[in-house]
Amino acid sequence: MNKKARELGVEIGKLPTGKKNCITDVAGVKVGHVTLDYHLENEGGYACTGVTAILPHGGNLFKNKVTAACYVINGFGKSVGLVQVDELGVIESPIMLTNTFGVPQVTQGTLQYMLELNDDIGISTGTINIVVGECNDSYLNSIRACPVKPEHAIEAIQSATSERAREGAVGAGKGMVCFGYKGGIGTSSRVVEMDTDGENPICYTVGCIVLSNFGSSTEFLKENYKIPNSHKEPIHKPVDGSIIIVLATDAPLSSRQLTRVIKRCGIGLGRIGSYFSHGSGDIVIGFTTAHDIPHTTNEFLESRTQLREDHLIMNQLFAAAAETTEEAIINSLSQAETTTGRDGNIVHAFDFAQK
Amino acid sequence: MNKKARELGVEIGKLPTGKKNCITDVAGVKVGHVTLDYHLENEGGYACTGVTAILPHGGNLFKNKVTAACYVINGFGKSVGLVQVDELGVIESPIMLTNTFGVPQVTQGTLQYMLELNDDIGISTGTINIVVGECNDSYLNSIRACPVKPEHAIEAIQSATSERAREGAVGAGKGMVCFGYKGGIGTSSRVVEMDTDGENPICYTVGCIVLSNFGSSTEFLKENYKIPNSHKEPIHKPVDGSIIIVLATDAPLSSRQLTRVIKRCGIGLGRIGSYFSHGSGDIVIGFTTAHDIPHTTNEFLESRTQLREDHLIMNQLFAAAAETTEEAIINSLSQAETTTGRDGNIVHAFDFAQK
Amino acid sequence: MNKKARELGVEIGKLPTGKKNCITDVAGVKVGHVTLDYHLENEGGYACTGVTAILPHGGNLFKNKVTAACYVINGFGKSVGLVQVDELGVIESPIMLTNTFGVPQVTQGTLQYMLELNDDIGISTGTINIVVGECNDSYLNSIRACPVKPEHAIEAIQSATSERAREGAVGAGKGMVCFGYKGGIGTSSRVVEMDTDGENPICYTVGCIVLSNFGSSTEFLKENYKIPNSHKEPIHKPVDGSIIIVLATDAPLSSRQLTRVIKRCGIGLGRIGSYFSHGSGDIVIGFTTAHDIPHTTNEFLESRTQLREDHLIMNQLFAAAAETTEEAIINSLSQAETTTGRDGNIVHAFDFAQK
Amino acid sequence: MNKKARELGVEIGKLPTGKKNCITDVAGVKVGHVTLDYHLENEGGYACTGVTAILPHGGNLFKNKVTAACYVINGFGKSVGLVQVDELGVIESPIMLTNTFGVPQVTQGTLQYMLELNDDIGISTGTINIVVGECNDSYLNSIRACPVKPEHAIEAIQSATSERAREGAVGAGKGMVCFGYKGGIGTSSRVVEMDTDGENPICYTVGCIVLSNFGSSTEFLKENYKIPNSHKEPIHKPVDGSIIIVLATDAPLSSRQLTRVIKRCGIGLGRIGSYFSHGSGDIVIGFTTAHDIPHTTNEFLESRTQLREDHLIMNQLFAAAAETTEEAIINSLSQAETTTGRDGNIVHAFDFAQK
Repeated sequence: MNKKARELGVEIGKLPTGKKNCITDVAGVKVGHVTLDYHLENEGGYACTGVTAILPHGGNLFKNKVTAACYVINGFGKSVGLVQVDELGVIESPIMLTNTFGVPQVTQGTLQYMLELNDDIGISTGTINIVVGECNDSYLNSIRACPVKPEHAIEAIQSATSERAREGAVGAGKGMVCFGYKGGIGTSSRVVEMDTDGENPICYTVGCIVLSNFGSSTEFLKENYKIPNSHKEPIHKPVDGSIIIVLATDAPLSSRQLTRVIKRCGIGLGRIGSYFSHGSGDIVIGFTTAHDIPHTTNEFLESRTQLREDHLIMNQLFAAAAETTEEAIINSLSQAETTTGRDGNIVHAFDFAQK
Repeated sequence: MNKKARELGVEIGKLPTGKKNCITDVAGVKVGHVTLDYHLENEGGYACTGVTAILPHGGNLFKNKVTAACYVINGFGKSVGLVQVDELGVIESPIMLTNTFGVPQVTQGTLQYMLELNDDIGISTGTINIVVGECNDSYLNSIRACPVKPEHAIEAIQSATSERAREGAVGAGKGMVCFGYKGGIGTSSRVVEMDTDGENPICYTVGCIVLSNFGSSTEFLKENYKIPNSHKEPIHKPVDGSIIIVLATDAPLSSRQLTRVIKRCGIGLGRIGSYFSHGSGDIVIGFTTAHDIPHTTNEFLESRTQLREDHLIMNQLFAAAAETTEEAIINSLSQAETTTGRDGNIVHAFDFAQK
Repeated sequence: MNKKARELGVEIGKLPTGKKNCITDVAGVKVGHVTLDYHLENEGGYACTGVTAILPHGGNLFKNKVTAACYVINGFGKSVGLVQVDELGVIESPIMLTNTFGVPQVTQGTLQYMLELNDDIGISTGTINIVVGECNDSYLNSIRACPVKPEHAIEAIQSATSERAREGAVGAGKGMVCFGYKGGIGTSSRVVEMDTDGENPICYTVGCIVLSNFGSSTEFLKENYKIPNSHKEPIHKPVDGSIIIVLATDAPLSSRQLTRVIKRCGIGLGRIGSYFSHGSGDIVIGFTTAHDIPHTTNEFLESRTQLREDHLIMNQLFAAAAETTEEAIINSLSQAETTTGRDGNIVHAFDFAQK
Repeated sequence: MNKKARELGVEIGKLPTGKKNCITDVAGVKVGHVTLDYHLENEGGYACTGVTAILPHGGNLFKNKVTAACYVINGFGKSVGLVQVDELGVIESPIMLTNTFGVPQVTQGTLQYMLELNDDIGISTGTINIVVGECNDSYLNSIRACPVKPEHAIEAIQSATSERAREGAVGAGKGMVCFGYKGGIGTSSRVVEMDTDGENPICYTVGCIVLSNFGSSTEFLKENYKIPNSHKEPIHKPVDGSIIIVLATDAPLSSRQLTRVIKRCGIGLGRIGSYFSHGSGDIVIGFTTAHDIPHTTNEFLESRTQLREDHLIMNQLFAAAAETTEEAIINSLSQAETTTGRDGNIVHAFDFAQK
């Protein structure tokens, strides 16, 4: 338990991982978690949820935006901020993850944090687009009680670090369930190396973090990973789950190119067993740290570096998107701990230790 | 002042209006406003904003959904709920309008309202998709202070009626600016009649309500309406504005067909002078009351009535979408009153009376 | 050789296949092939290509259209007719497959066929939308010589039958290469059964036919199918390939629902090893035979039956789309024969017999 | 007659036109027409149609591609090549216009032309994406007879020049009908000037060419242009028409930005009276000559210049797209001559001379 799947012998794909096998292998990216885990006052009520913040860089994201894209695999979801990302191809706030009914409060908290940082917003400049993804953790969490508050979002942002991110039943992943077992936060990374002649090969890193909350136990394609059946019983949720996938890279990509890359995250999701079920909000948000896009400037022209798409490195980035998504999901399972939530509901960890 | 443009001699299009020339001409549709208009404690601070609720019908929208669609004309906007409308083609909550930073609190309030009405949500059934549109009213409203609270959303829903809706500087429209003059809420309707032989012609109604907050004074194509220049000075906002357009109909349309209809709202927006400017969140949300879609049922099949698209009535619905949008925008101007907001900022009503 | 993968012990997914494990298990669907296989006059020139026709039903498709949808997995492709399928959600012609530069002639031939059948087109009624998918077979076929002619399209349509379709190096599949081995045409089907109480369970069939021409040999996830390495050498094409996937069903689905179903074909494509590579035109075209949509009628209303999307049968259709795509691709490999084409280029069949 | 609308006193918009008020004001862009105008052998048969070629530059477009985008206003159309433009954001062939059933032959001819120019296509490199737009000219043209042949496409390309393009009943416009009067080819341009302090202001040009074939006479908003009613009778076509809009610019735009610009062409189309009717294929294809994108290169990185979208010049480009579309349509009417086609059908020129 508490190991990454790779440490347990599960290997996914062909590309090498980054040093931490974590989204924070992409230089500058930070992750922070706030986990709620306590009895509520009403009978059986339990806060089993949280907030996770992904920061594309440690600076003021409104003043220095990043190239971004989003892709809806299946749109049964309540994410916030995608319309503007789609139109403009930039992200200007931390990317926040939480439970479905925590979205308004997390948006509010993130807004307050960004307003405090930027006293021109809403006065001398326009507004700000906050990005929030969500899954429904109502099997373990008393979701109707809305235990997540704006301050939890602020705390998650402020606690973000570039260290190897914690995984499993932590942050927004606290109450999530994947293939009937305890899921939640998982992350992985890949390094793509340019086949150049010189002595200093050019490397790009792709990192992925997921909030996994999807799939029935019969859909899990365990056999592909040579994982034995868990001896623990999976739960059967009354409704389909979801997954939010956040992909980071330092490869120079336009937002059109980035859209192509993150679309391949669905391959990883499909390979582990998902059919993008009807009630699942399967959404990918991607960004690259390659460009520094100032909020204001005296220039009217920009020069954006981007990859030649016909170069084989593009296909490797596609592979990296699929591989990191698949491995991040496996990690969300292997790192999670058996968790008890509202009304005594228990979700077991998948028993990787058997192997 | 306080008159619809049509009463002032402005005629738009060829189709006849409904009885109230209002979105509530579509049977069952209700509109409610809550207007905030008071000094805040900090110096110069002023709440000049509000909430508007559009209810597709008076019942429990989660239990009886309506066929819906959305269309992004220009995506510089922070609307909530569009991803799921796009995927499933239904709306299951009131459609809420407010200022940009009021979105989280209005979402929260609408969520609370719907949770109270449906004790199965988040327990024995899935979650609910709240739909909220917004414009930036920061020239008149102290938007950073977030004066809109969840209870305002609930109050707007509860106060909704099927009467002729108030227009202009009311509800979410309180602080909005259109073509440099006072804009906000405007509404219009059209009746499309089937050319049948019988004595009882079949009629469909199309209603539209807008939250207008876009355009510079030089863009307004006044000459097309034979409106003289206002002798009042327009303001020059530092940033582009937005418009949210909500279209209702009782014509039986699939969500694909409805998407086609609401896409034509952009024609009305263009005819009055908009170029869908860069910083504008121009978004259309549409629904038809023709189908009653139960949340749960024992059936696994549905039979949905829809129009033959090659019938000329489809083109008339397209015209109705364009005409009602154009006229609703004009009404948002003609009905608005000169308004003073934060830091003494004044936005004048466009002086239709001159005519 | 010349066996379906399932006969060779490869099992994919959990749902049962239809009787023929072929797209023609969907009642009414017909498939026809014309294969070109001869030396051209110029040195080294070889016609190693063909045309495949898929008929949603045996009647006059212009007069009786079918509900349809298309989905672009990766758009490096030259398919014809998708814009209108996307807008209207119907198909009104046979669906044709051929090589990239055969598209104009196949469109022309199909047009001529349909014009002969319908003397009102272009006179008293509008035009017709022909649908053609393509892959680049230039490794084996002298594609620049454009050996495919309009009459080949007509012949493919006229030869279509509802029998079990031939697979492998046949029709449009004659010159195609998949994972470096001989690919081409493959097909598979699934039956989804309603879990009803009565004695007469309701069944829906999903059939899929592919034109496979994608992937490098290192991408093929053979290990998932327990297939040994072929002892034949794969070829290395200079450019990425493509795949066209045509999905048929008799399940009553709106075109929005059908879009959701065919989007899941990408899961099957990903599971076998594809990363939807940059230069690949990966396109899905789907239709359901559930509705008979007349070209003209005196009615202005239609009643379309569709599935409740929250019913578990929807998720089973999703699974069927993924499973049939994956198995159709495998069949395109297992059924193909080693083929020699232009300039003596040889592509070997993948050696399933080893098993 | 034979005058541009501006010479007849019609002014549209506020931006200045380019020197020729023609798409060829964008440096490098060339236009060529081939017009077919003769009796066919069968009784009443008449070839009243043609081909128009728009060349983004005079060089080898496959070897030096241009940044491009396309946008479907209404998808009842049979255009070719849009899928790949959408995916990759480039155009690598001339943009061809013709009648609906001329598309296969024009595609074939353009393909042959490009193959001759590039002997590597289909041998050592991949295939090529041909872009063709179309409208239905069947009221005047014997469209079922398919009089357009591949050589007409080649001739149109070879005859292309950078002079002021001919307009009206010429090339692909020969048989087209707009608002019941003779339409066809029209073009217009705008110059957008940067508000810089220096002495050498930076200028960008936007040019637009249309193939107009849409609208009923009652939809034409003549009153906005102060044009008197024509004393000639308009015709009433049995089906809706279409419009293809091709927009060229030298402004440095990414394909995402270009998509935003060409989406505004719909404003111009709406302002003149269109409701994007059901049976209309209203499609926009755009390109910028700002980047030279080589087919192959040793580089794996590119640096693409693009505009800051928040700069006011973006909004001016939006206006230019709307203004040039509107004026190009008016020009297609003012420049057209009364035309007699198949079965003695006559379409009158709109009588601008009355003014």
